[in-house]
Amino acid sequence: MLQRNLFQIEEQTAWDDLGNGIMRKIYGYDDSIMLVKAKFEAKAVGALHEHHHSQVTYVDSGVFEMTIGENKCIIKKGDGYYVPPHEVHGCVCIEPGILIDVFTPLRADFLK
Amino acid sequence: MLQRNLFQIEEQTAWDDLGNGIMRKIYGYDDSIMLVKAKFEAKAVGALHEHHHSQVTYVDSGVFEMTIGENKCIIKKGDGYYVPPHEVHGCVCIEPGILIDVFTPLRADFLK
Repeated sequence: MLQRNLFQIEEQTAWDDLGNGIMRKIYGYDDSIMLVKAKFEAKAVGALHEHHHSQVTYVDSGVFEMTIGENKCIIKKGDGYYVPPHEVHGCVCIEPGILIDVFTPLRADFLK
Repeated sequence: MLQRNLFQIEEQTAWDDLGNGIMRKIYGYDDSIMLVKAKFEAKAVGALHEHHHSQVTYVDSGVFEMTIGENKCIIKKGDGYYVPPHEVHGCVCIEPGILIDVFTPLRADFLK
């Protein structure tokens, strides 16, 4: 799997509506990595879940209450977090915004 | 190697001054992935280089002229790009801003 466009341009990339106030755009990826932009409305909930991928995230905008395992933290624009493989994590959006989620390896399930 | 803080908070994370108008903060990482925040002054140049890591980048702010192999593109806040392993790439900062660079595997050289 490989992103055919080396450059991902905001206005040329469509949002995928996941429902419940969450939308997603897929940016760069290959078999080993994937960058995804996730937009949340206020009060939208990223339900607790886990996956075998390591994840690093950067907060592009907004405010979120983030849970990773037993840890909770309020994060805002400019902050970030790390999720180890199989660690349960989720978020509640406090002020609308965008998370930049990056996974290794590829989230092949996002390309279906 | 592992980032000991699950959460990376902007004001609590120091910039590392790389010189020539470029500063860096290291965010989440483990052996398989690393997220890095790179701040550029106007006219700062990210010299052409290559590495074995796959790289995905998100433009947090600013405007950049990006080169990946034979391809050039002007990118701005909200855009992104993908760099295949060993592909030569570099940038010139047109308006000051921040790139969110994510690598797989870990950029162990950044932790020295």
